Amino acid sequence: MAAERVVEIKNKQVLFKDYVRDSLESDMCITTEKTISLRVPEGTKGVVVKNLCLSCDPYMRNRMNKSEIDGFFSSYSPGSPITGFGVAKVIDSRDTNLKKGDLVWGTTGWEEYTFIEPTNALFKIEHTDIPLSYYTGILGMTGLTAYAGFHEVAKAKKGEKVFVSAASGSVGQLVGQFAKLMGCYVVACAGSIEKVDLLKHKFGYDNAFNYKEEHDLDAALKRYFPEGIDIYFENIGGKMLDVVLLNTRNFGRIAVCGMISQYNQENHEGIKNLMEIIYKRVRVEGFLYFDYLLQYSKFLETVLPLIREGKMDYIEDLAEGLDNGPAALVGIFSGHNIGKQVIKVAHE
Amino acid sequence: MAAERVVEIKNKQVLFKDYVRDSLESDMCITTEKTISLRVPEGTKGVVVKNLCLSCDPYMRNRMNKSEIDGFFSSYSPGSPITGFGVAKVIDSRDTNLKKGDLVWGTTGWEEYTFIEPTNALFKIEHTDIPLSYYTGILGMTGLTAYAGFHEVAKAKKGEKVFVSAASGSVGQLVGQFAKLMGCYVVACAGSIEKVDLLKHKFGYDNAFNYKEEHDLDAALKRYFPEGIDIYFENIGGKMLDVVLLNTRNFGRIAVCGMISQYNQENHEGIKNLMEIIYKRVRVEGFLYFDYLLQYSKFLETVLPLIREGKMDYIEDLAEGLDNGPAALVGIFSGHNIGKQVIKVAHE
Repeated sequence: MAAERVVEIKNKQVLFKDYVRDSLESDMCITTEKTISLRVPEGTKGVVVKNLCLSCDPYMRNRMNKSEIDGFFSSYSPGSPITGFGVAKVIDSRDTNLKKGDLVWGTTGWEEYTFIEPTNALFKIEHTDIPLSYYTGILGMTGLTAYAGFHEVAKAKKGEKVFVSAASGSVGQLVGQFAKLMGCYVVACAGSIEKVDLLKHKFGYDNAFNYKEEHDLDAALKRYFPEGIDIYFENIGGKMLDVVLLNTRNFGRIAVCGMISQYNQENHEGIKNLMEIIYKRVRVEGFLYFDYLLQYSKFLETVLPLIREGKMDYIEDLAEGLDNGPAALVGIFSGHNIGKQVIKVAHE
Repeated sequence: MAAERVVEIKNKQVLFKDYVRDSLESDMCITTEKTISLRVPEGTKGVVVKNLCLSCDPYMRNRMNKSEIDGFFSSYSPGSPITGFGVAKVIDSRDTNLKKGDLVWGTTGWEEYTFIEPTNALFKIEHTDIPLSYYTGILGMTGLTAYAGFHEVAKAKKGEKVFVSAASGSVGQLVGQFAKLMGCYVVACAGSIEKVDLLKHKFGYDNAFNYKEEHDLDAALKRYFPEGIDIYFENIGGKMLDVVLLNTRNFGRIAVCGMISQYNQENHEGIKNLMEIIYKRVRVEGFLYFDYLLQYSKFLETVLPLIREGKMDYIEDLAEGLDNGPAALVGIFSGHNIGKQVIKVAHE
């Protein structure tokens, strides 16, 4: 019997050129020089996937710095494709849990096709009545981050006063909705009138403001939270965190998901009001979604019905094609996106 | 029957002059102008006490600023005596729970005699085989602060790596000993060779260093904690906190008891490394002893035997007489004291 023919095809990729110096976008480039076999090599237990959607997430910025950190946050390798969360279709498999045609989400490459091994960080997508791109966000890392951060880290209670920053972004838009569903008072901020409108009228928060138009953020918070803030879901860091500290209530919690305002800065802004946490017994806690992966099934059971019944909204900002990938990723650091930034690589 | 004669005697006091401007000491003065009745007024339920020892604690500095905070941390009133923790003897009582001759600890005035009403913040001293001054420290607020902060806030586990700052001070000296008793690795810092010697040889910590002699605090911490810090018991704030953030391990805890380096500063030092708490999932939590008062009996049952059996050491720095009170209080902010600063007002 003749050996099966191995198909090698061109594979468009977004390469990481080198550790970031000045501009982010110029540190990535598109290439079609490489080819990839669409068959899983013998002797491995991996899969070859066709990438459908890719996720733009703030943590990726940190992976563009040279660092000593291992694992999930290790630096990208110059000359290799960017990696990140994505939704993909299995083209070939030697993994007994996945078969050709299966849809998965998890960490994949910024390229048309990716060979993935090991596959233990891939989740099989069982519910396909929901747009597949949602698995890069509300039904994926972003969703679990918002859910765990709000319920497990901040330990929110009904009626508490919740402030969300970067609130039209991928995590922020979900946190505010979880808070409203729980019966909290929610005020959120974002960086444009259009986004503020979304927060107020689409997500139904109690109020929202454009932080770029507030000359005195402390006064703004005192206006929206005359009794103080119970929970701050921290996405941006810097000055906003400093004024929130002045406005937390006794036993307040600050769930620190990210500090996007600081990722591009060489010299991080100093936080001057940390002393506030003593007398007010405030807890400031960092967290990562992957400590809560065991809760993913429970999370899906909670969120899928909310989406199907229209009780949660979800806004995506879709960029078409890998060619637009670098600009889309860079855009999230200056707030160009409205909603979760996704790159549509291919249709199923 | 003739009405009992009301005895009014001169009452030496340390008055708070006005909200702090430049120097602390000049904002207090000694006066003997006032008199006090040694009988509890009819129609009240208070006690008159003779003050024996007074406690100098960092939080008192904050009460010398004008602030809007009510309760425990409210501003001192210009023209009235300083108040703080102390040990006292009941001279007269209309409180059914306390009788003449009882010894108590709790909040009292910086003066020879104080009329206290209500008395619900006074604790009756039952165990007098221990020096009474210990109830201003290891057996009082300071002890419970160290105990609750280490066990309840930091949730220390055997074998963890613990860093204590201001470690020869009133709280620091106890935290390190609780940590050693639990089987933790303990390194502590203080501000003089003499204090470092105490930490190493009297308290038996694994190591100790003089932070004033370390030009590179980050390098010092990396030397003493090559695998990082699990628990930082924060007493000083500022630069030390910033470098600790660089050296915490995953799931580290920073129990924030105080930030004494910042209390005298108009402009607080900015903390630049807070981003570290995200990837390392660090919890930074402020706390106050009075949230743990329900554990006071359990705490006493734990600590009294440790003192009696010589398993815990306790260092006090005793100043004699109210006249030396202002200087003693001011001294704790520049590290003049070795051990807990106490003012001996009178002998029993």
